[in-house]
Amino acid sequence: MINGSILIGAGERRGQTSYEAVEAATGATLDPGFWDADPGHVDEACALAAAALPVFSTLAPEVRAAFMEDVAARILDIGDALITRAMAETGLPRARLEGERGRTVGQLRLFAATVRRGDWLDVTIDPAQPDRQPLPRPDLRRMNQPVGPVAVFGASNFPLAFSVAGGDTASALAAGCPVVVKGHRAHPGTGELVARAIQAAVSAAGLPEGVFSYLPGTRRVLGEALVADPRIKAVGFTGSRTGGLALAAIANGRPEPIPVYAEMSSINPVLLLPAALADRGRDLAAAFVQSLTMGAGQFCTNPGLVLAVEGQGAEDFIAAAASHLSAVAAQVMLTPGICSSYCEGMETLSGRPGVQRVATGQAAAGTTQGRAALFRTDATHFLADPVMGHEVFGASSLVIVCRDGTELRQVLLALEGQLTATIHMDEADRSVAAELLPLLAVKAGRVLANGWPTGVEVCHAMVHGGPFPATSDVRSTSVGTLAMARFLRPVCYQNLPDALLPPALQAANPWQLNRRIDGVLTLAGA
Amino acid sequence: MINGSILIGAGERRGQTSYEAVEAATGATLDPGFWDADPGHVDEACALAAAALPVFSTLAPEVRAAFMEDVAARILDIGDALITRAMAETGLPRARLEGERGRTVGQLRLFAATVRRGDWLDVTIDPAQPDRQPLPRPDLRRMNQPVGPVAVFGASNFPLAFSVAGGDTASALAAGCPVVVKGHRAHPGTGELVARAIQAAVSAAGLPEGVFSYLPGTRRVLGEALVADPRIKAVGFTGSRTGGLALAAIANGRPEPIPVYAEMSSINPVLLLPAALADRGRDLAAAFVQSLTMGAGQFCTNPGLVLAVEGQGAEDFIAAAASHLSAVAAQVMLTPGICSSYCEGMETLSGRPGVQRVATGQAAAGTTQGRAALFRTDATHFLADPVMGHEVFGASSLVIVCRDGTELRQVLLALEGQLTATIHMDEADRSVAAELLPLLAVKAGRVLANGWPTGVEVCHAMVHGGPFPATSDVRSTSVGTLAMARFLRPVCYQNLPDALLPPALQAANPWQLNRRIDGVLTLAGA
Repeated sequence: MINGSILIGAGERRGQTSYEAVEAATGATLDPGFWDADPGHVDEACALAAAALPVFSTLAPEVRAAFMEDVAARILDIGDALITRAMAETGLPRARLEGERGRTVGQLRLFAATVRRGDWLDVTIDPAQPDRQPLPRPDLRRMNQPVGPVAVFGASNFPLAFSVAGGDTASALAAGCPVVVKGHRAHPGTGELVARAIQAAVSAAGLPEGVFSYLPGTRRVLGEALVADPRIKAVGFTGSRTGGLALAAIANGRPEPIPVYAEMSSINPVLLLPAALADRGRDLAAAFVQSLTMGAGQFCTNPGLVLAVEGQGAEDFIAAAASHLSAVAAQVMLTPGICSSYCEGMETLSGRPGVQRVATGQAAAGTTQGRAALFRTDATHFLADPVMGHEVFGASSLVIVCRDGTELRQVLLALEGQLTATIHMDEADRSVAAELLPLLAVKAGRVLANGWPTGVEVCHAMVHGGPFPATSDVRSTSVGTLAMARFLRPVCYQNLPDALLPPALQAANPWQLNRRIDGVLTLAGA
Repeated sequence: MINGSILIGAGERRGQTSYEAVEAATGATLDPGFWDADPGHVDEACALAAAALPVFSTLAPEVRAAFMEDVAARILDIGDALITRAMAETGLPRARLEGERGRTVGQLRLFAATVRRGDWLDVTIDPAQPDRQPLPRPDLRRMNQPVGPVAVFGASNFPLAFSVAGGDTASALAAGCPVVVKGHRAHPGTGELVARAIQAAVSAAGLPEGVFSYLPGTRRVLGEALVADPRIKAVGFTGSRTGGLALAAIANGRPEPIPVYAEMSSINPVLLLPAALADRGRDLAAAFVQSLTMGAGQFCTNPGLVLAVEGQGAEDFIAAAASHLSAVAAQVMLTPGICSSYCEGMETLSGRPGVQRVATGQAAAGTTQGRAALFRTDATHFLADPVMGHEVFGASSLVIVCRDGTELRQVLLALEGQLTATIHMDEADRSVAAELLPLLAVKAGRVLANGWPTGVEVCHAMVHGGPFPATSDVRSTSVGTLAMARFLRPVCYQNLPDALLPPALQAANPWQLNRRIDGVLTLAGA
């Protein structure tokens, strides 16, 4: 059911103003109308979240894991209505959205399994040394605890996997934090369907209703009030650099500043080393265009920058990529606003000194579709013009043809922080690659060889993060189980009676956790 | 040798202006004069630090551990000259400084052992699944890497353990980050002696000279330039709330914002539960006064707030504490500035409505000594007056006599974030304690039972951190081996040829690390 409500705890509310959902492909209005949440709703949701914290933060792993699995099951139970609504609101094709639903559900289940395993508690015990000289050592036991209620700002480009029940929500719930989601206006019906699934799971599990609230809306004051609320202790955000920095400024200006984990901006450099280019430049070109144009290029890991040293290999690559890209059909973009920003970004890039447009995709039918585009420039012009390093969100990429390896290295050094950095190499490129890789690891959260950055695996080893402006916190990832760490804080207990310790720290190890004893990792079974 | 130099890499420099060290007990000038480092020195030190990063960040654990142990040995080798200089500059007694030296050296050795063990790398491997449907999984390997050069602002109150080679420096070096220390003006000779020991250890190990630089000085622009330098990637700070917030504002305003780990302000509430108070109120009073007045109360974990429910037990405790405290001699404080701030803080507290001074320590001889002080108030006045919750750095504490447990809980809820929270309890207090403990764990980084917060153990389980304003980052600790985590960031490698992976991630596990494989912790031997 979609009725445009604001969902606060177990209840639903109406707002003072309303707005409409838009069909991405046509710009037409979709039923029903949606209420705008306002600061009064923020206050109510945050009060409930704070009230839910003591119970939700101390659940046994098994209970929290089962709740998360039930959320996953209820999302699947929505059935095809979720897919068709998301298709209408986002313009994304069925196969992509079905895949994304699978990813969303799989993500919740992976976090549930991780919660059960318990390593995220990082239990660390330094037993008392009563006879130590000159002073005895007290008994000290440390574990991670949730930071408190978390505000989540969903992304437009993953209406399921990075929205209401997406990676930020899943990782915050896994960590034991109640969540207040600010719903994205680009897919309000999709958002409401998912929010109702979470709301029902909270109720079915008998958890305090404040574990989850959903505040959809279009007004800036909504997000501002949410980040400013003193009961909110951390923020997860995926979106633009401007948006992320605005939230960070609010968070830093609070009487109690809080962390904002904003995943913002990345152009994901791809290095084509000479031997790889010579051996298989045309294959690389085909795969590059596929990675670039998939989903209308609306991925944060889209390969927006390609680096190669000048020569026949680079020219062949560019020619082949141009040929492939020219044949790519224009694609519906997520919102008219994203589509017009993309066109503006392309025009800006097109007009920079030293930039040539080498190919454009098939013409767009109407103002909701984006055409792919490929540009080239040289290192001198790129290094002189920071605008060329800005993200153009969509299927646009810039090839920088460098005079030599030294110039290529200069370009790399000049780049801002990135989510990913990719190197294509053959055996003969190995010594060059060995020199470049440490530099890539300084610039990006994920370093790939002989692949493409799109397609972010949800697993334990993933880092979907990186130095600013890729994210606002280089220590964090927003994809993969390490994302939980954003919402945890260590607490140390000194000389507490065993029965008063949280179960994770008790001598009998009732949760059967792996623990670090006097600095030595000790497996639960051992 | 102390000659007042600025130490940059392997070299020494003079400045444009100079200042003098002051004998804490007398206010007299100590030889020699000291040069003020300036922004030009910052530039030079940061350039060297950035140049040192590629080598220092990739050292084998054994090499970095041995270097840190050599730093410890060289600090001991300075001999008694270090203790006598620190005594003169800080007014702290010999036994305290000898103990602090032991702690400093032990801390370096503990970090060295932790570096060797390698768990801080958090190696996490999700092996490829080439046959997975619908898409194969690539090989994904994650490990922690240093964030880059770190700026350290030492504290005045631990001239050894939290200054030039203190916890921040030790944890940053352990993480593989070059360090630029901004020397504290309160102990410039002590600082230079220690800085020379580190400089010599860098040279003896054949490491790049930029691994360590020492920039002493008195001008605000020095610290500002250091935090603003684009090559600095994180900041460790221990000091005042004003100072910490000023550095955080600079860090947040950079084109690339960076984390500031500031340990700032805490009044460390101590709860005296009724049965404990009735059973041993007088003993508690004696121990409390000892904890409060040790080192002239100049500890961040000083018990500045005591909470009790009204009754004979509370009155007996206050009377006994007053009696003990009245006998405590005035003590030399670290600097004339700290002494006058302490006196002002006491006077301010004294003048708040509803506050009574119940005892004052022995009179001070001169303006460099601080007298202990004990105040009392009730919950109503405390809750109405946020000023009473501010830290008074020195041997001053405020007892809040609450009408009942409900009021005591209200006071707790109203407190800002704390480094520590302590509960004194007997068997009969257990149910009350069980209700209060979760609240204490929300408010503080360390929760103690039946002890005193001063005396911070350097170990694996320690958390010397807490919610704002105790620190600027609730996820962090500045004491104990977890302090390394502040200076590490995760990096994921996807499908890299094994030989090009960092050793920690290679298939053969050449560093014999514990690793997480497909989510399962696997010990090195297994």
